[in-house]
Parts: sequence; structure tokens; C-alpha cells
Amino acid sequence: MKISLTSGKTISCSSESSILESLRKEDVHLTASCGGKGTCGKCRVIIKEGAVRSLSTAKLSQEEIDKGYALACKSFPEENLLIEIPKDSFLTLEGKIAVGKARDLAELLQSAGVRIEPLTERVLLNLPQPSIDDNISDLERLKRGLMSKGLGCLRVPFRLLPGLAHKVRENNWEITLCTVQSEDCYELTNIFPGNTQSPRYGFAIDIGTTTVVVYLVDLADGRLIDIASVYNSQISFGDDVITRIVHAVDHNGLGALHKAVISDINTMFSILRKTHNIDINSIDSIVIAANTTMTHLFLNLDPASIREEPYIPTANLFPLSYAGEVGIRVNPNTPIYSFPCVASYVGGDIVAGVLASRMHKKEDLCLFLDIGTNGEVVLGNSEWLMAAACSAGPCFEGSGIKYGMRATEGAIEDVKINPETIEPEIKVIGDTAPIGICGSGMIDLIAEMFFTGILNQKGKLQKGVSNRIREGAGGLEFVVYSGNGREIVIAEPDIENIIRAKAAIYAGCSVLLKEVGFNFEDLHKIYIAGGFGKFLDIDKAIILGMLPDIPREKFEYLGNTSVTGAYLCMLSRWMRDEAEEIARKMTYLELSVSRSFMDEYVSGLFIPHTDMNAFPSVKNLIKG
Amino acid sequence: MKISLTSGKTISCSSESSILESLRKEDVHLTASCGGKGTCGKCRVIIKEGAVRSLSTAKLSQEEIDKGYALACKSFPEENLLIEIPKDSFLTLEGKIAVGKARDLAELLQSAGVRIEPLTERVLLNLPQPSIDDNISDLERLKRGLMSKGLGCLRVPFRLLPGLAHKVRENNWEITLCTVQSEDCYELTNIFPGNTQSPRYGFAIDIGTTTVVVYLVDLADGRLIDIASVYNSQISFGDDVITRIVHAVDHNGLGALHKAVISDINTMFSILRKTHNIDINSIDSIVIAANTTMTHLFLNLDPASIREEPYIPTANLFPLSYAGEVGIRVNPNTPIYSFPCVASYVGGDIVAGVLASRMHKKEDLCLFLDIGTNGEVVLGNSEWLMAAACSAGPCFEGSGIKYGMRATEGAIEDVKINPETIEPEIKVIGDTAPIGICGSGMIDLIAEMFFTGILNQKGKLQKGVSNRIREGAGGLEFVVYSGNGREIVIAEPDIENIIRAKAAIYAGCSVLLKEVGFNFEDLHKIYIAGGFGKFLDIDKAIILGMLPDIPREKFEYLGNTSVTGAYLCMLSRWMRDEAEEIARKMTYLELSVSRSFMDEYVSGLFIPHTDMNAFPSVKNLIKG
Repeated sequence: MKISLTSGKTISCSSESSILESLRKEDVHLTASCGGKGTCGKCRVIIKEGAVRSLSTAKLSQEEIDKGYALACKSFPEENLLIEIPKDSFLTLEGKIAVGKARDLAELLQSAGVRIEPLTERVLLNLPQPSIDDNISDLERLKRGLMSKGLGCLRVPFRLLPGLAHKVRENNWEITLCTVQSEDCYELTNIFPGNTQSPRYGFAIDIGTTTVVVYLVDLADGRLIDIASVYNSQISFGDDVITRIVHAVDHNGLGALHKAVISDINTMFSILRKTHNIDINSIDSIVIAANTTMTHLFLNLDPASIREEPYIPTANLFPLSYAGEVGIRVNPNTPIYSFPCVASYVGGDIVAGVLASRMHKKEDLCLFLDIGTNGEVVLGNSEWLMAAACSAGPCFEGSGIKYGMRATEGAIEDVKINPETIEPEIKVIGDTAPIGICGSGMIDLIAEMFFTGILNQKGKLQKGVSNRIREGAGGLEFVVYSGNGREIVIAEPDIENIIRAKAAIYAGCSVLLKEVGFNFEDLHKIYIAGGFGKFLDIDKAIILGMLPDIPREKFEYLGNTSVTGAYLCMLSRWMRDEAEEIARKMTYLELSVSRSFMDEYVSGLFIPHTDMNAFPSVKNLIKG
Repeated sequence: MKISLTSGKTISCSSESSILESLRKEDVHLTASCGGKGTCGKCRVIIKEGAVRSLSTAKLSQEEIDKGYALACKSFPEENLLIEIPKDSFLTLEGKIAVGKARDLAELLQSAGVRIEPLTERVLLNLPQPSIDDNISDLERLKRGLMSKGLGCLRVPFRLLPGLAHKVRENNWEITLCTVQSEDCYELTNIFPGNTQSPRYGFAIDIGTTTVVVYLVDLADGRLIDIASVYNSQISFGDDVITRIVHAVDHNGLGALHKAVISDINTMFSILRKTHNIDINSIDSIVIAANTTMTHLFLNLDPASIREEPYIPTANLFPLSYAGEVGIRVNPNTPIYSFPCVASYVGGDIVAGVLASRMHKKEDLCLFLDIGTNGEVVLGNSEWLMAAACSAGPCFEGSGIKYGMRATEGAIEDVKINPETIEPEIKVIGDTAPIGICGSGMIDLIAEMFFTGILNQKGKLQKGVSNRIREGAGGLEFVVYSGNGREIVIAEPDIENIIRAKAAIYAGCSVLLKEVGFNFEDLHKIYIAGGFGKFLDIDKAIILGMLPDIPREKFEYLGNTSVTGAYLCMLSRWMRDEAEEIARKMTYLELSVSRSFMDEYVSGLFIPHTDMNAFPSVKNLIKG
């Protein structure tokens, strides 16, 4: 069967693959924030001719359905189709706003006192032409050339031999060699005819449970060229790591989960390469940082034992793999460095975060808090590091919140509520019409609603306070925005989710400190990581009771530290050494079995907290 | 389209593939000594139903053609077929007679003073089960286990990680690890659940231009279990290395040549495994010894530059490859060690031969002579080694001789001609009816014919001497055998070929000695290698003028030293070190440009030689 696009292209399809999948195979990428679950309603197409079997029409109005709109992810061709793809449905990579962070990255690298020495290098050789008197073989000639550059110990794998004779002769014995150096190997990865020393690029990737972020980096100077991010398509198999492991184990779904995230990465690579006109053979390195389960699924490793006591991953320190081994569509010999993990529930993303925070180099006690899908916290200094996971859930990344979204264009990132008029004033990323609320916006919103009395300490909406409060399908809701034929509301179930998440985070930090005999006052610094966007309003987060009420200057918001760590390791072997040392040094405290964690958590299910004495500045504000 | 066999099986086929190829794909192997050229007439099938397009009916009588006989290699289906395969057409592996050499091999290993330490080892680990207190990852547990066996430095490649979690748990944390150690790596190659330390086997392979020989070896004790040999199917693309390189280059034929020899090896492996009921995962090592071109074609490396001045191969020292990388059908992670070569025209087969002869360990001057398709000679001792190639041609392997064949069942290996009756008395390998003459038989035959006056010094048949001499299609011929409806003759063109070959061999030895200021009398030993079968009659070879007329006790016939060398390197790392040292040490003398070689060659085109004074014992014999 075939699908013809009104734009001219024709692709093949089958009744077993959704239109979304068939388009993706042909490099036509549609937005599908929900990972193809049929819930986000973004992958709309208009069926002009032919019949489809549609399993869901969520978020489509009857009028749209009548006009032929269908969700590509849930529609399966029954015959040849002619479809139109509305402009809005095309995937545009998000997250570009963070490109502003480029300067910070270079500064970070400099402040760590390391020079750029990427995972992979390129070496130019101009070999003498063979003659009757100098008739050693091509391989020996190449090795002699390497020896003269001090690279005699480099391993040359067999796979580079076929084709070698052509490559050395193609540009008159001038060749460029790609090398990789990691803990377990120092070897040649590729050979290209002629001088291809530049340009060369790397992809640093944060594979989050909810979001996958890619940094495209110039390996010569460490310049961040572009950023892409998409929702992790594995979402269609479950929101958290546990349901994904269950899917892998009970539904023989490892292959599908693996393919989903590989496909997300390939999509971003393909768009970034096209945008910046980058040749596939100029991609030299890939570094991924991810939690232990995401790392396993990316590498196609069985995650079953991660979930079963005594919680054993296949590996914590991963040997180097190659793009061809995991299905990444660049040169198959491009090496992939996977961040070391600590244990089943403390992964490479946290190691990367500590690395980016530099807390492992500080004498004073610091706390690192990563507010991602799970919520992890690390306490320690240059002597020791202890980590815990708080099971906060992915609501600050937009998941589980009706109008939640990531910090990308169209997200409300900042909310102020006028105490007089009780009318909200919003700031939207990209200054466009809002389409949802991101993590920082949610924190602002709850804090402001609490402060203006729209919300009580228990997180219940106070019906009389604002006429924006109304009865919705899921209980009371507050209309944050209404305009352009669109409404953005926050409902009580959303608020409950946010309160549960912030309570878990606060409890995690608090209990971890207590376990080692410290409290919040002993902290020199609190580093906060997470996909909140450019800013996180610390004051509002304290009012919410997510962060402790200590001097504001002790807080530092670092953004996505997982991808920052991946960036650092791609550019410096010293950073890789440090990452491995962090992973070795870090110990893990299991909170889920801790009674004091449950107590702290329950106490935190108020705004800001049951114990108002722990939040003196908030207490003062309310009094004032 | 389909081919049904009268035996019951049905296979798919196409009009583009010969019946031979289609059968081979389904593991139905027919004898095809000529490599599918349509000249040996051995791959006969009977077409019972359906039409075929036949490109050749060579060696089929009209009666047979009428009965439906066709050559499988030159017949292409035009519709569905029903065919019968006569029992004689099935491939039965040849060369088993040499199994008698098993004891010699063990002795050789012992005499070299090395203990068995194969290329690959198996290590049994019984790992402690993980617990909450001992919760390191599967990989770290495995590495800890290796460390306790003193194998901490072993590299674990990424490809072993997927599946690791299952393998360690399948047999309650008992696993067997396969390791390989070579010049450029020491790594884990495979992991099997449970105790699979034995049995384990290796394949030592000699890839000759004409013949491919496989030794199936028990790696525990070095026992030779079985031998298989087939003609190298590349023969269908040309008889010698040069025409094969031309085919690779001018006809884009590298892939076809590579596949041909891989398919030969896979066929032998498959039959040997079935015969001895050997599991595919018990094959641990493969070692190949071959000339430089054959090594390149086996490894799928472009041989083009081997043929062009300044004659540069892709490599002389080859990195370890894996079965999956070259298409050998055993466990894809089984390592393949390729013998080091010296230069484009002195290959690993000669290095293997020197290794097997042990001449590189002797203080006295020795000469090593390998009479294969080319004819190579090595002179030297423990101090130095010099090699030359004589371009003798493959006639002693049966090629280019009408009734020539390898030293396998049915070959005449020994001939005596009664000086009174002028009647030949023959000995046939396997004591069956003869089907051809092998190398040792040819030497005997020519010497005896010369001695009894059937043949003159110039190699011409003397018509009056025997009524077995008659006019044949290609000139005069001598009927060696007649019976069972079959005749075996030797014709003057065959005799000319043999004389040219022996002249080239003698000239090569003689000139190489002269070049370094020695002569035959200075030799302590002459080692002779080649596929002559069990015996080579030194006296007869001297009468023929192939070998110099020096004391008989100086000669030692070693059989196929290429496969012996492969066997040695498979079983001992010291042997691999020695092989690499031999390759480094050996220098190459180009004879084809030498005037004295041409002079010597022309002088040798007589029986035994133009200069009878160089053959005093033969002179005496004739006088007597």
C-alpha cells in the first residue's frame, strides 16, 4: 500500500503500521509528544482520499473529524491514501532557547581547569608512497605512520582492513585517522581518504525517562551549535522506569523500547544534520548520560533484574559501544561512551549532574538535587558522596498535569497573580500564545495561588476567591489563561500531583541529611538541576515547600546537568576519569524502606509544610 | 521456482542460480572438483521432470544425456524440477587417509618443547549469587570472578553485554567464558551458561590455491579428529593467483571469490560437525595458513595491489578477525587467526611450512621446498631465512593433467613398470579402482617410464617400446590403467607439464643456493612439503630431476606443512610467536627477473637434467 502526500512525496505503508510510523521510516517526522499514545493530539493529518482504521480521535473536535482530521499515531491505512500534513504537525525540534547556555559550558570547562581533549581525535597522515625498496604492506605503512606520531600502541581492529587498500590510495597516501581512547581501549575507529580533520562534531545526549535532549557540539572548540529535544517515545509504553521494565519483561518488549529511543535520537540527529548541513562522517563521538534503566534500554540490555531484589543491573561501567552496534544512524564505527551508573536507581544522569556541579571537588558539604522524572538527591563533598531517590514523579516535566509541558516554546514559565484583582499575568517562552505550563510556571502558579488565597494550605481551591475557579470534569479548576480559542486550566488533581512531588523532594533531601547527622543549615550550597527552563524562582519554590527555607544565595540553578555532564565527558578525558571516580565513590541510600522518609513526606503534603517553623521566612511573609 | 529431490526434500531455486548453487544453499553438497567450471563432470544429477538450460554437458555420454543426466554446475532450472542425485555425486570429504598423521602432530608439538596452550581458552566461573549486601552489577561480578583467576586484564567487548543478564542466571551463576589472546588483543569472546569447558574444538585450515584442507582438532589434547579437503571453488575463476586477482579487479569479483572459498570452508565445517555430532558453540578457534592472495580473498581484502608493482598487500600481519566478520558459519564470535605473510608472493603457507619443519631453529643450513600450486623454496637456518617462488604450476596437485587428482581415495600413488614386460603395476589409495593419478604417482610413473625406455630424456613417448602407447586426442599417450570400463592415460602434454614443473622447482632451489654462495652439497637437510599423499619416493624424484642428487638421508618428506603450521599455532602461543618471528626474519628473492634462473630452468627441461654430472647416481643407474 502507498501513502501519497499532497506535498508530492509518496511512501510505502502497511495496514499494520500507523501512519506516524510509516512517515517516520521515510524521514517525515511529526510531533508526537505523548510518544504515540494517542493522547497529545499533535500528530494530526488530514485524510484526503482513502480509508483508515482509527483507534483514537482524542483531542479532535467533531468538526475536525468531519473534515478528515485523524491522529497519525492511531490511524492505520486500509487502502492507498492521499494525506495532507498541516504545518503545525511537523516536528520542530524544541529546546533551542537553551542555546544561550553555550557560553556557560565553555566557562565550566575552563573553570574545571581542563583543556579540550575529546573522546575521539583525528590524526592526519601523509604516508610515503610504496616502492620496490619500501614495499611493506598498507597496514604496516599505516602503523609506521602512527608510530611516527607517537601512536604506536593504537589497536587496529580487523573491520578497518577491507577497503584499506582503496582508502590509502584514493588521495595519494594522505589519510585521516579517527581514534578513540577510553578506559578499556585505545583504538582506530575510522579511516578517511584525504584531509578530513575538520569539521568534526559530537552529540552529547541526556536520555531522560520523559525527555531526550541532544547537544550538537563542535569538537574543535567545544562550541555548542544547536540543541534538540523530544519526548522519549518510550512514554507510549509507560510513564516511569518501572512500567517500562515491566513492559520489557512481561511483553517481550525490550526490542520495542530500545527501538523507540533509538528512533527518537535518530530523528533528532537527522534533523540537526540537515539543519546544519553536516556530513554523516563528520560525527565523531556520541556520549550518553541516562539513568540506569534508560542506559540499559538504549544499549538493548535486559533491565529485568533492575526491578527485582537485590536490584542488579547488567553493568554500571559500560564498555565503549559503536553506533552500528546499537542502531544509531551515523557512521557505524562512531564510538558511544555511556556514563557510568552507581546502582539500579542511581544512574549516569546523577553522576553527570555531580560532575557538572563540581561538588565532588568542594571541601564544604553540598547538596545536589535533580528534579527529573524521579527526583534524585546527592549529599557530600570531595571526601564522600551519598545519593538517594525520592520517587517524585515527572509532573515538573509536564507529565501527569493536564496542561503540563516541557520548558519549550509556548510554555508558561512565569506567573504572577495580582493580589488586588486576583488576575494572573503570565510570561510565555518564545513570547507566543501559551499552549501549556512548564515546571517553573507550575511552581510560580501554586505559590502565587497560595499567596493570594486562591488555594489553601491543603491545596484546595477556594471557590469564592476568584471567578476563574469553576467546576471541571475532574473537580474544581482554575482558568490560568483563556484566549485564541484556547483555555489553560489547572485542576485540583494537578495540584495534588504537584504537592506530592514537592513533598517527596523535600522529604528526600531532609532525610538524607538526617541519616548522616546533618541538617539544612549545614549546607554550603544546594545545586538544583532539572528541565525547568531558563529560570527557577527559588523564592516561589521555598513558598511551595519544595526547597528548604535557607539563605537564597546558597541555591544555584544549573539547568539540565545530565546533558552538561555528557558534554564535559565528550570533550575531556579528565572529565571521564572524574565521572568514573564519582560513580565509584557514591553510595546509595534506599529511602523507600525508611520510616522517617514516609513521616517527612506526609508532613510535606501541605503548603509549604505542616511544620511552619521550618519555613520562617514564609511564615513571616504570610503574617506580613 | 522449486526443485524437488526424489529423496523427498524440496528446495527453492531461481533460473539465475545453477542447480549446484541452489542445492548448496540448502546444505546439499555435490562433488565439484573443478569448482563449478563444468569440466570435471562429477556433479551429475538426473532430471526426472521439468526443463533446464544446460551450458555444458562435458564428460557426459550421449546415452547419459538421453537418460536425463545433467551437470548441476552448468544447468539452470527453467521451471519446477524433479531431480535424482546419484549416490556418486554426493560430496564425500576426501583426505581421511592422512589421519594417520595424528601421532606425528602430537610428536611434533612435543619435540618443539611446548605444552598445549591454545589460541582460545575456556574458563569456568562459579559466581556468588548477588544479594542486597553484594549488589554489584553482573558485569562487575563477572570481572571480579575473572580477577580471582588472574584474568583481570581481559577486555570485555560491548557485544557480550546484551544477553549477559540471562546467561549468568540461566545456570545459577555458573558460566563458562571463552577467551582469546593474540598479539594485539586479550579479550573475552563468548559467554555460555553452565559448565561448557569441554568438549572444545578448533579448525586448522590450509587454504591452497587449488585445495582447501581442514583439520578438526580437539583443543584439550591436540588430537586430530578428522580431516577434510576439497578443491578450492575459486578454481572456476582461474587456476592461479594472478588470474584470480584479475577476476577480482577487472570483473568486480572480490565478493564472488571471497564467497567461493568461504562456502568451501562452510561446507566442510558443516559435514565435519554432522559427522562427529559437534555443537556449533563447541568450535572455539579457527587458524588459517594461506598464501598472501588466498589470505586476502578469505578475509575479503582487495588483492589488486598485490599484482601491480611494487606489489603491496593490504597487510602481512593480520589483526584477529571473527567468524561473523568473514561469514564463517560457526558462532560469530569465534576468533580467526590468520598466519602472518612475508610479502605479496611469500605467504603464510610458507611461514607455516618453515615453522612445521623447525629449520628456523637449526644451526645448519637447511632447505624447505613446498610443492603446491606455485612451488616455493626457503633457504636458511636459525640466523637467517631467504625465500623464493619458482612458479611451478599446480600439476602435482592434479591440475592441468588430464587424469591428475589430489592424493585421495582412488588416486594412483605408486607405479612400478616391469622392465621385462613393460607392464605397469599400480597402487591405489584406499585400494579401490583407480580414478586418477596423484603427485607421487606422476613422479613414479615418469621415472619408471624413463627408466624402462617408454620415455626419452626429452619426455617424448617411444612408440615401439610398449603397445600401451597410442595416438590420443592430444598426441601420443600411455595407457596406465584400463579396467572397470575406465581408462587412465598419461599424454605427452601432461608429461611436458610435469617436466616444466620439476625443472622450475630444481632451478629455484639451485639458483637460491647460488645467490647466497652455497650449493646442494652444503645442505644439512631438505624438507619437502606438498600434497603428494603419504609418501614421496625420493629416489624417483631424483631420477625425474626434480630433487638434487645428494644423499637420500638428507631428505625429509613432511606432507602438508601449511595445515601442520596452522595446527601448531592453534595449540600454542609460542608457536604463534615463532611464526611471527619467521615472517619478520624472512627475506624474499625475486627469481622471475633472474637470468640464471631462466638458464637453470631450460637446462632442467630434460630427464633428469641436461647436465648429467649433477646427477651422478642417476647416471650410474642408467649405465648399470
